[in-house]
Amino acid sequence: MTLRIAVIGAGIMGADHARIVAEDLPGANLQVVCDMDAARARAIADKYGADSATDPEVTIAREDVDAVILASPDFTHAPLSLACIAAGKKVLCEKPLSQEAGECLDVMKAEEAAGERFVMVGFMRRYDPAYIQMKAALDEGRIGRALMMHNWHRNAVTPAADFTGAMAITNSAPHEFDVLRYVLGSEVRTISASQPKRSDSKVAPVVMVIETTDDQLVTIEVNNNAAYGYDVKAELVGETGSIATNHVSYTLMDQNARKSVGHDPDWRDRYAQAYRQQNKAFVSWASGGAYPALAADSWDGYCASVIAATGAAALTEGVRKSVDLIARPAFYERT
Amino acid sequence: MTLRIAVIGAGIMGADHARIVAEDLPGANLQVVCDMDAARARAIADKYGADSATDPEVTIAREDVDAVILASPDFTHAPLSLACIAAGKKVLCEKPLSQEAGECLDVMKAEEAAGERFVMVGFMRRYDPAYIQMKAALDEGRIGRALMMHNWHRNAVTPAADFTGAMAITNSAPHEFDVLRYVLGSEVRTISASQPKRSDSKVAPVVMVIETTDDQLVTIEVNNNAAYGYDVKAELVGETGSIATNHVSYTLMDQNARKSVGHDPDWRDRYAQAYRQQNKAFVSWASGGAYPALAADSWDGYCASVIAATGAAALTEGVRKSVDLIARPAFYERT
Amino acid sequence: MTLRIAVIGAGIMGADHARIVAEDLPGANLQVVCDMDAARARAIADKYGADSATDPEVTIAREDVDAVILASPDFTHAPLSLACIAAGKKVLCEKPLSQEAGECLDVMKAEEAAGERFVMVGFMRRYDPAYIQMKAALDEGRIGRALMMHNWHRNAVTPAADFTGAMAITNSAPHEFDVLRYVLGSEVRTISASQPKRSDSKVAPVVMVIETTDDQLVTIEVNNNAAYGYDVKAELVGETGSIATNHVSYTLMDQNARKSVGHDPDWRDRYAQAYRQQNKAFVSWASGGAYPALAADSWDGYCASVIAATGAAALTEGVRKSVDLIARPAFYERT
Amino acid sequence: MTLRIAVIGAGIMGADHARIVAEDLPGANLQVVCDMDAARARAIADKYGADSATDPEVTIAREDVDAVILASPDFTHAPLSLACIAAGKKVLCEKPLSQEAGECLDVMKAEEAAGERFVMVGFMRRYDPAYIQMKAALDEGRIGRALMMHNWHRNAVTPAADFTGAMAITNSAPHEFDVLRYVLGSEVRTISASQPKRSDSKVAPVVMVIETTDDQLVTIEVNNNAAYGYDVKAELVGETGSIATNHVSYTLMDQNARKSVGHDPDWRDRYAQAYRQQNKAFVSWASGGAYPALAADSWDGYCASVIAATGAAALTEGVRKSVDLIARPAFYERT
Repeated sequence: MTLRIAVIGAGIMGADHARIVAEDLPGANLQVVCDMDAARARAIADKYGADSATDPEVTIAREDVDAVILASPDFTHAPLSLACIAAGKKVLCEKPLSQEAGECLDVMKAEEAAGERFVMVGFMRRYDPAYIQMKAALDEGRIGRALMMHNWHRNAVTPAADFTGAMAITNSAPHEFDVLRYVLGSEVRTISASQPKRSDSKVAPVVMVIETTDDQLVTIEVNNNAAYGYDVKAELVGETGSIATNHVSYTLMDQNARKSVGHDPDWRDRYAQAYRQQNKAFVSWASGGAYPALAADSWDGYCASVIAATGAAALTEGVRKSVDLIARPAFYERT
Repeated sequence: MTLRIAVIGAGIMGADHARIVAEDLPGANLQVVCDMDAARARAIADKYGADSATDPEVTIAREDVDAVILASPDFTHAPLSLACIAAGKKVLCEKPLSQEAGECLDVMKAEEAAGERFVMVGFMRRYDPAYIQMKAALDEGRIGRALMMHNWHRNAVTPAADFTGAMAITNSAPHEFDVLRYVLGSEVRTISASQPKRSDSKVAPVVMVIETTDDQLVTIEVNNNAAYGYDVKAELVGETGSIATNHVSYTLMDQNARKSVGHDPDWRDRYAQAYRQQNKAFVSWASGGAYPALAADSWDGYCASVIAATGAAALTEGVRKSVDLIARPAFYERT
Repeated sequence: MTLRIAVIGAGIMGADHARIVAEDLPGANLQVVCDMDAARARAIADKYGADSATDPEVTIAREDVDAVILASPDFTHAPLSLACIAAGKKVLCEKPLSQEAGECLDVMKAEEAAGERFVMVGFMRRYDPAYIQMKAALDEGRIGRALMMHNWHRNAVTPAADFTGAMAITNSAPHEFDVLRYVLGSEVRTISASQPKRSDSKVAPVVMVIETTDDQLVTIEVNNNAAYGYDVKAELVGETGSIATNHVSYTLMDQNARKSVGHDPDWRDRYAQAYRQQNKAFVSWASGGAYPALAADSWDGYCASVIAATGAAALTEGVRKSVDLIARPAFYERT
Repeated sequence: MTLRIAVIGAGIMGADHARIVAEDLPGANLQVVCDMDAARARAIADKYGADSATDPEVTIAREDVDAVILASPDFTHAPLSLACIAAGKKVLCEKPLSQEAGECLDVMKAEEAAGERFVMVGFMRRYDPAYIQMKAALDEGRIGRALMMHNWHRNAVTPAADFTGAMAITNSAPHEFDVLRYVLGSEVRTISASQPKRSDSKVAPVVMVIETTDDQLVTIEVNNNAAYGYDVKAELVGETGSIATNHVSYTLMDQNARKSVGHDPDWRDRYAQAYRQQNKAFVSWASGGAYPALAADSWDGYCASVIAATGAAALTEGVRKSVDLIARPAFYERT
């Protein structure tokens, strides 16, 4: 009855997933928390009365584990997703599915061979009210045909000092790549990227321009050292109107000659509802329901991976590059 | 392990509580839906695989019911709360606890006699981020001592054509009475009320001015025919700053020469998170945890009832009236 | 051809009027700046190449003075306005016309005796886009009949340490009294007033409730020690919609985890356009044009004076009081 | 004493300049309105009691004309500016100075030969509070070094049906080119441009990416068929914070389930204050004052022209192009 979930990876995102499973998901039970760092796994497991473990493959294979949430380091995502498929267990894989397009294709082939989907990729913004409302406005014809989409992705500071512009494209921008595909319903055709210069050694922002297969233009700014806070924004410009994300704050403060609202500390606060809804959809699917309509699948993971790699090359080479995707397999068509 | 909950009343709020219990509360199970209208009860019960019933007292007494959510007509709240206390079952009672202060006192006496709390009153705004942030700003000294609070409560249209100004005070305003007590941490000392005149037969807004025992001034507008939408707002004015609710909308639309955000259709959308958090706190408490720090208790229900009755009298008589409360029983002191 | 203007009073407002006349009003010339403090008058006069003077009556009588702007201390407004009328010169009198209703009546009688208007009262908000738009929305039927108006008047700090609640009503609130009459097109019937308590010796805010002759309800908060900044707000609530002032700021700052806009330092910045438009209307009228449609006249000055005095009494006595106005003289009817 | 101004061109902008001179500029007199269409010139001239004329060169040469405002068709700007220089009269030339860089150089040479400036170019945004505040925030170090600037220029509909993407760059975008140079204090080094596709025959938006000589990145969207209204926005992103234009509206409307503010009908409303301040600065300069610190000069006009021509070529060729400017003549250095 209750879906027994293993969370693999006990870092920031793993801890958050464990909390969501344990506290906010009816029909689910946090069965195991697995991390190479045994103490880190145990700390979280103990908090919620779950088992702890250090071996992900063993964890995936456990009889008392029905489904898996992967929040381990990026390079493990594809191999562990394959292990889940092999074990016949549904997996919610944190983004990216892989930074290597080839690994994404391996996962797709494994699903196709199995004849069913096993993977949801954790592009949780698809469950955020802002993007849902933008997509609905477009799909319902309220802003006419989509012409442009502008996107901003800002973090207060980079997680690591040696973060590079290429990493901004391959680690941060995939959320933007996925959400533009989701909202516009188009594929990416070309990408170019450039950077201004900072006066210090921190990584500078990256500005990208994307053309879609429907001849739309998309701009993306990824600024990992925005300093002032975490801030993700988007605007979708249609032929008859425009819809943009609105800053969400429950209160407004008048103080010291300013009227202000707060910025979210980070993405977990900003997307708390989206994570909960995404994981709820995963539980529903892994408990026997249909594949969630909003979910990002392996194909979406593959596309984000190819766009990111092409974008990083475009930045290095200083030229606009074509994004070369395989044809979308019939298996991944949505109806 | 799992808390088996009966929802009594299958109207708008009952349906919403049933949905929350069934879909959004880990550790809880929707056991029974009870309504005098058997078909209405059954429709909701069937949706979530619960039993349906028509007799609330029998439902409360069932061995497979651990806790109760009351969303039946207002006049049944106190008697059914007493039945829950008698049955030794925790109850989350939709507001009001009773419109009769005497009935509230009966519930309080029953709890005191039992030597423990059994009742949470559904003033869910205490779980809304806006009021929580306002209270925190005050408690943390960020706006200095509280001087005033302004409150607006607007519905698009009244639920019934024969709604009166007194009903605006006794049915709608109690949310305002409770939340001002919660945010300010003061009791109400006096209340006055007046109404402008409408040009049609609809009920006109009511404007109230309240003085608290800490010599703060509170204004409340209840406008049940605001026409434009559901809109609840508040501002807390301190000696060094002010904090107000901010309109929450995830998107912003540019269209037809206007830039706009939407109003929520009604309170269930506006307070969706608050209801979920409130009910989660109820489950935690009813499953053996401590009484929730944010919850409204029977004393709070009693206070809201007395303020409402006094406000209605003040409107009728056209004078400012004292709000005469009994001394707060030691049993209801919060530490 | 060019209107030669004397500005009487060289304090904050006099200096501002002198600047507006000298720099921003085509068709006008700053002829004299008059102040009892000769040095203060001279400082401003020299700045703009005008004469300076110390005797207001002599200044008003000068042959090279065509029109007068009064920005001298409040108690001189009525007598100097009478002097202007006697001299046959148009006068723009800063608010209040007088705090004594009797003095206002004297000015009215002098105008009636002269058979024409000579006085504009400086309720400049009538020229502010916010109130103009609110009035237009009402007059054009876009929000239905007016039911309520809410008003806030906040200063960072009182100009004087011995400011009282009564002074908040007689010195600050007249702007609110005038603008509610202007926007609603109704007279004030009753007024009540109360104050919360501050924890220090500063004057506490005053909250007023007003009933109009058209059975509308108006709330006014005057908070002269709001600490955070200068902030004037209003909302007009109609039967089908509501229109409120919007905070005007040309830029928005993201910094230190907050998104913020600035508050105006004081009323001169907030109402810069309104002052300029008001004074432009004065020049047009004093140069031979029709009496300005938006202007506050002596009758408006009288009404504000009576409401203020009644409000101060209501605060002292702690009761709601009737506002007793004489019947509006036919001379002051607007068509 | 009074500056006698000729306004040449009686179209939309000429009519607006005539109104500003006649009604809002102390120290100036509208002497002549000149237009090839005699009736159009006369209609405006009569409104303000000015002369009308049809020959611009004769008008510029009139003894009773001290200074000139050029609002005639774009192609006449440079030749008529040269005529003003020849006549020794200061000229405020509507943008562009010329679409031909060579013509701009001719004007520069004429000024240099004359040994003094005669030209202000009407990039009025330099007088808009939003850009002034952005520049001040940057210059005062409040947002750190500038990294990026994002700009949006939207009109409801194109003035002409046969408007092209190249025209969007050469006619509309120069305001953006000038203001980014003004705010950033940098020159433009490269420009690229692309367009999405519309589903109808209207001109599609143009998206440009600019690199400056200080290695900043600037994005510009020009959308001449935005449909929803006139909307100009900008954000300046610094290393420690960000400052953006804020939508200015004096009122906020709650109606039909939306909360909204209005868009300006067009640029004259949005930039009314900027035009007035710009023209006031022109009068001050032309009356003997120093060259206005904020003004755009012939060098600025030349730069905008070269950037626009390069941008149009970049759009046609689909490549990023270098913007090749002559070295800034010492004559045009600002101190």
